[in-house]
Amino acid sequence: MAKSSVADPSHQAFSDVAFAFDIDGVLYQGHRGIPGAREMLRRLCSHGIRYVFLTNGGGAHESAKVKSLAERLQMSQHEDVIRDRVIVSHTPMRGWEEGLKQQTVLITGSHPERARSVANEYGFGRAVTPADLIHANDKLYPFDNLKDSLHATFRPLSDGKSASSITDSYAAEIPPNALKIDQIFVWNDPRDWSLDIQVIHDLLVSREGYLGTISAKNGDGSLPNNGWQQDGQPPLWISNLDLFWKTEYPVNRFGTGAFVEALKGVWSAVTSGAGELRFNALGKPSKFTYDYAHDRLLHYYSDMCPTAGASGGRTKQTLRRVYMIGDNPESDIRGANEFEPADGTEWLSILVRTGVWRETSAEREPKYKPTVVVDDVVDGIVWALRNEGVDATKEWLTSEP
Amino acid sequence: MAKSSVADPSHQAFSDVAFAFDIDGVLYQGHRGIPGAREMLRRLCSHGIRYVFLTNGGGAHESAKVKSLAERLQMSQHEDVIRDRVIVSHTPMRGWEEGLKQQTVLITGSHPERARSVANEYGFGRAVTPADLIHANDKLYPFDNLKDSLHATFRPLSDGKSASSITDSYAAEIPPNALKIDQIFVWNDPRDWSLDIQVIHDLLVSREGYLGTISAKNGDGSLPNNGWQQDGQPPLWISNLDLFWKTEYPVNRFGTGAFVEALKGVWSAVTSGAGELRFNALGKPSKFTYDYAHDRLLHYYSDMCPTAGASGGRTKQTLRRVYMIGDNPESDIRGANEFEPADGTEWLSILVRTGVWRETSAEREPKYKPTVVVDDVVDGIVWALRNEGVDATKEWLTSEP
Repeated sequence: MAKSSVADPSHQAFSDVAFAFDIDGVLYQGHRGIPGAREMLRRLCSHGIRYVFLTNGGGAHESAKVKSLAERLQMSQHEDVIRDRVIVSHTPMRGWEEGLKQQTVLITGSHPERARSVANEYGFGRAVTPADLIHANDKLYPFDNLKDSLHATFRPLSDGKSASSITDSYAAEIPPNALKIDQIFVWNDPRDWSLDIQVIHDLLVSREGYLGTISAKNGDGSLPNNGWQQDGQPPLWISNLDLFWKTEYPVNRFGTGAFVEALKGVWSAVTSGAGELRFNALGKPSKFTYDYAHDRLLHYYSDMCPTAGASGGRTKQTLRRVYMIGDNPESDIRGANEFEPADGTEWLSILVRTGVWRETSAEREPKYKPTVVVDDVVDGIVWALRNEGVDATKEWLTSEP
Repeated sequence: MAKSSVADPSHQAFSDVAFAFDIDGVLYQGHRGIPGAREMLRRLCSHGIRYVFLTNGGGAHESAKVKSLAERLQMSQHEDVIRDRVIVSHTPMRGWEEGLKQQTVLITGSHPERARSVANEYGFGRAVTPADLIHANDKLYPFDNLKDSLHATFRPLSDGKSASSITDSYAAEIPPNALKIDQIFVWNDPRDWSLDIQVIHDLLVSREGYLGTISAKNGDGSLPNNGWQQDGQPPLWISNLDLFWKTEYPVNRFGTGAFVEALKGVWSAVTSGAGELRFNALGKPSKFTYDYAHDRLLHYYSDMCPTAGASGGRTKQTLRRVYMIGDNPESDIRGANEFEPADGTEWLSILVRTGVWRETSAEREPKYKPTVVVDDVVDGIVWALRNEGVDATKEWLTSEP
């Protein structure tokens, strides 16, 4: 078919096609923006094309990611081009119901105190960090507990709770002031794997999340999962499962997924291989995150102008196709390939060569195959627009609108 | 048969029977000595019975363990009762050949700098810590590298080596100043799992131990272990595999073995399950450690009085039976049960209830069954002496000789 003119702003592709961009390794590498990415985004924005930034980063507020993206693309963080479009790994938890937000949550990450601040802002008022626990009971962690450095910042346990009132892990009676954890949140790249794995283990073997107890159900072969995690222990939420990420170092560096694999390894030994580690993963490739992103794209115009609707409520505008542009086959590509939204919108996947994936002798093809592999994000958008019948060129896309 | 009188110091049991004591959880719990343990040791010593202390502790000099044992038993560290008898997890490496001691070793542990000092004292002159590496290349670890706190102490790389001269991990040419690691030593309870697992991974995927390279053999199904660890990567030595240890906290705490399980978990993900993690373990239950302890017991009298022999060389005195007294079925008991020394000496195992093992509903019997289970170390020695036909009583054993 004949390609449409790029000068035609009313082209159908501009209203029912959307994009989801991964950030690290796609829009920038390390501290350098990908050449042309800024102009390309401005071009899409000026045509009213819907897009979001979908990152497995986290542990900080969404606005921090907007800021770092703006710096690397050398633009203002307040430009509509990037404002209010960032979805980090734990953003979907903003929408959790109030009842869950009243629970006591253990939260950790690369900077647990910062993660707690974000959780507080989301509405989780009772968030405890591993640092709080070692300050509350210095017998909990028997090695150098770094209370004067890494874990210097802490808050006393609230509501009169204690992390040391349980002295017999199998005792029938639990003291009324014993600390009970209801949910565990791992919000990106725990810094202190040793402490965090110890504490998470303690909660996963506990009775109902009471720190210092051990469930009598553990190892009971008559129960599901041989009794492991069958006694009201707190659900474990991991904000993403990325094993690797690309930095300026020549070998890819470990991410949150590596922490999870480490935890799984320890758990396998603790349970003698009889207990599968039960957890919930957010972030790409989880359906949870793609559902959230899809919903944001559907409501994009309404969310940007919340007063536009007569009722003030959110209104949907349907989509026909969404392109996910990412550098990570295991998260970006896999997630897009496996995602089948209820409204029948098609998600396609575009893999770029600027990030974590690299063709090697051991891996000539990515484990999860994208719709197309391109050199960088600009080529990816050119490909997508041409796939939509738009006669787009790299020169047009990267010239200032 | 009639029990021999305990007053008979020439009883056969006193010359061809020996003991190997685990320390933590056997001779003391936390900071408290087991009642009667001090007097019992003095009694054995006064009868010239051979014994050693065989601990999976490490990361510090043997003399530090002697000191902590002396403090907890409230005796002098210079008493013959405890002097020169401590074998820590890495003590067998003292005997490594000089050629190996000239190699470049990566060493880590709960306090890598302290571990390095011990390694230097053993004769390993080229020991590098993870802290050295992050100070030499701050791109190596992308998170908070704690260079001002946990990893403030470091040494510059020696011999003009660089940790940043490799910029392309697959390049054919390796710069002559690139750092090459020949051995990896994990000497007890790494504090910084995240950094250490990253660095150990980097070496295990490297070409010949050159930091920053990636072996093209990784994942090659035509090679053993699918090409993993098949390209001259440094051998990995772990000083012990204890998953848990007993402290004053009501739930057992993770030890070095948990770090290894975490590393295995990550390795399994890195290799997509196709590469078994190859490593060598010291410490109980390894044969390496029991061989070393057995050799020390055989030469005990000669080592104590090195000038006694005419030649000044070490002379053996045969053994008939050795009793291992420990609290950990997986290390102490398993190791003794499986150990079959070349000279035919029988090793029996005694499990005490003062340490890490505890009868639970999930584990009514220890996974590795000892010859006998006793309440504490004093009962264990009474049992052993009576097993040897000596009419020993607890009162006699724990009275001052």
